[in-house]
Amino acid sequence: MMITEELVRLIMQTQMDDIPIEIQAHSKRSLLNWMGVAIGASYHESVDMALDVANAVGRNEQSTILGRGIKTDMLFASLINGMSSHIFDYDDTHLDTIHHPSGPVAPVVFALGEQLNIPGDQLLRAFILGCEAQLRISNAIYPSHYTLGWHITSSTGVFGAAVAAGLLLDLDEEQMLMSLGIAGTQSLGLREMFGTMTKPFHPGRAAEAGLLSAMLAGKGFTSSKQVLEAKRGFANVTAPEHDLSKVTVDWGKVWEIGKNSFKPYACGIVLHPSIDVCIALREYAENAADVDRIELYVNQYVLELTGKKEPSTGLEGKFSIYHTAAIAFLEGDAGQEQYETEKVNDEKTIEMRKKIVPIVVDEMREHEAKGKIILKNGQEYEYFVEFATGSKENPMDDSALERKFKKVTKSLLTDEQKNRIIDRMNSFEKLENIHEIIELSYIR
Amino acid sequence: MMITEELVRLIMQTQMDDIPIEIQAHSKRSLLNWMGVAIGASYHESVDMALDVANAVGRNEQSTILGRGIKTDMLFASLINGMSSHIFDYDDTHLDTIHHPSGPVAPVVFALGEQLNIPGDQLLRAFILGCEAQLRISNAIYPSHYTLGWHITSSTGVFGAAVAAGLLLDLDEEQMLMSLGIAGTQSLGLREMFGTMTKPFHPGRAAEAGLLSAMLAGKGFTSSKQVLEAKRGFANVTAPEHDLSKVTVDWGKVWEIGKNSFKPYACGIVLHPSIDVCIALREYAENAADVDRIELYVNQYVLELTGKKEPSTGLEGKFSIYHTAAIAFLEGDAGQEQYETEKVNDEKTIEMRKKIVPIVVDEMREHEAKGKIILKNGQEYEYFVEFATGSKENPMDDSALERKFKKVTKSLLTDEQKNRIIDRMNSFEKLENIHEIIELSYIR
Repeated sequence: MMITEELVRLIMQTQMDDIPIEIQAHSKRSLLNWMGVAIGASYHESVDMALDVANAVGRNEQSTILGRGIKTDMLFASLINGMSSHIFDYDDTHLDTIHHPSGPVAPVVFALGEQLNIPGDQLLRAFILGCEAQLRISNAIYPSHYTLGWHITSSTGVFGAAVAAGLLLDLDEEQMLMSLGIAGTQSLGLREMFGTMTKPFHPGRAAEAGLLSAMLAGKGFTSSKQVLEAKRGFANVTAPEHDLSKVTVDWGKVWEIGKNSFKPYACGIVLHPSIDVCIALREYAENAADVDRIELYVNQYVLELTGKKEPSTGLEGKFSIYHTAAIAFLEGDAGQEQYETEKVNDEKTIEMRKKIVPIVVDEMREHEAKGKIILKNGQEYEYFVEFATGSKENPMDDSALERKFKKVTKSLLTDEQKNRIIDRMNSFEKLENIHEIIELSYIR
Repeated sequence: MMITEELVRLIMQTQMDDIPIEIQAHSKRSLLNWMGVAIGASYHESVDMALDVANAVGRNEQSTILGRGIKTDMLFASLINGMSSHIFDYDDTHLDTIHHPSGPVAPVVFALGEQLNIPGDQLLRAFILGCEAQLRISNAIYPSHYTLGWHITSSTGVFGAAVAAGLLLDLDEEQMLMSLGIAGTQSLGLREMFGTMTKPFHPGRAAEAGLLSAMLAGKGFTSSKQVLEAKRGFANVTAPEHDLSKVTVDWGKVWEIGKNSFKPYACGIVLHPSIDVCIALREYAENAADVDRIELYVNQYVLELTGKKEPSTGLEGKFSIYHTAAIAFLEGDAGQEQYETEKVNDEKTIEMRKKIVPIVVDEMREHEAKGKIILKNGQEYEYFVEFATGSKENPMDDSALERKFKKVTKSLLTDEQKNRIIDRMNSFEKLENIHEIIELSYIR
């Protein structure tokens, strides 16, 4: 049997009972985290722009834009919610492939769930299997595909979205195969777009393309049955090296979505050990004026990827170890709030970032960092982090995730709404439908 | 200056006065040919399916589906008209790159032209410059991009659509750059989809993606300014070998859209010399029963690409030299009608195709074929075609194009409508708007 066909057969055969409880629980964490970042960015100017375009083509009010309560048709709602959730670069990460799995899949689950009144257990199954499919495809083509220049979150995300939509639209095996074919030919996302609004557009468009694919397949639209493995199919065209056996190996035994991790901080993972260090070093200085400098001993990628000395916007701040360490020391956090442009340009932050001295140490691994704070009075203190918060070995626990959800949704929700969403998400699979959650996602 | 920026600058500077009259005339031929094939396939089942999806998301009535008169929003209209025009594999071809230029660009021109009431000269300029941009990008990456497995019509068609839409939406240079960035990251189309409905979906989706890109850019959406040349941009990611200087070289002197060719027959170009031959051989036999066999001396690709001996559907017939030669001999043509499934399975055709004997001759070039008809009475006649109808050296003239338009639009239009469309298209640049042409494109 061909790989694409085998994948589809495995997906269709996998019922909720086949999915371990801890994988279900971890997937619900992913959904909560996703909702938080999607709501948090829902008033970003790029969301306004996309909504303007949706209005210009004027479709039906079918599915809700989280955080805002406005409705657009299912396709645009998928695009916009998927985009919104990636704007802060604060979403979930499958560390083995640098894939952000919820972005392309969850919007489809929410859009169809709302429109078709689908119960929680079916939605959770579609979410899990959509994520699982795309992450396994990512495993098969990583790293050559990513190195070549593909934004893997969207380029394989189209498959995840098509799987989730296909399950919720109740496609048969033949139609699901077609859906994957139509989706795969729309694989998108160049890494060149990083740093622009088009980066978060990628998972949004992947969600929309996957949903469109499943809708067409459901009408009888035909496509290739070998989109993954064909000579001129997805893997050969987009990944110089690949091993498609990884798509189906140990299906049902090893769960890729179970490896999903969550970012405690609103910036690249490479910075997280340094943030942990700087937060810990706060206890050694009464106030910033007492500090002569903070030396940070870091992995080589830190300066390569985040070496920006004088950032002037919030986005640039995310690519600056100087701003990041300074603000983490000053405020004890590095959430989205710490990357607002005014924070980056604040005199106090600028003063502090001049005291940050990163030093590359060859032996330092990516999840490690060591800090030394040198006070003006000559005292010195050190702190070492072996596994940064949010890493595989030191994941965020549920209470940390809930704090993140509350923080990132800011004043966009009331405390009451936040608590109720957290509560409902805990038993997502028991929901009769998701209308209540969706109505909780914005202030009326 | 970078290539993408230079391309945008050249596009924006090029006014109608800078475009030679013969290039304008040839572009109007392209538009007429495109309208014909789009109308001709407008009742294909795949169009029904796409319309079903448009209905499911609740289309706003903005732009017309040619041939049917139904309206959907601009995005879906672009998708469906672009798809429709490629269903018969009977559209225009830029032979140097096997790109079908009108498919991704013309639907955007029609959709925006209708919705925004734009005069013909602006529409023609947008069409020409959109085609020119995408064909030059195709030149720069062909053949490695195509060989790798990309359906170049859509993969570079997104750029053409974005250019045309950007001009009609009156974007400034900065916004046009953004539009190309957003479009390029959505480049799509795997050749694996050939032979399925997803193949014609490609130019349709490219049109839609390009229009979406320009709409977003017009709202201020940001993207990369170096989508073509960046390290992880379009050329490096999708074409192992490329020469981006071809994008701008001799701009305004050499016109790629001027090289656009039109198919006289509804099948791959490789078959066209043999069709010419078989039509010519008709004069030597009163009726098919008198024929013992027809030997066809052909280029090697004929059997490689169209060697199917016993086709059973219309689509398979297009990949069969046996059916194609037989039907051309029997009916004196190889239009869409000759590739209907019932024609392929007709006893008379099956009888005749058994008498077709293709013989590969190494020296025979792609545009050549020789036929020898051997009658049962022993008489033999030969006919040689050096340049097939529709080739660069033997293009279809205006009257042949008009006959094709009339034939391909079948009974979907009245003779009066056909003649009036042909007349109006001749002076397309003088039209105040395209409402009349669009209303002529379907029977009310």
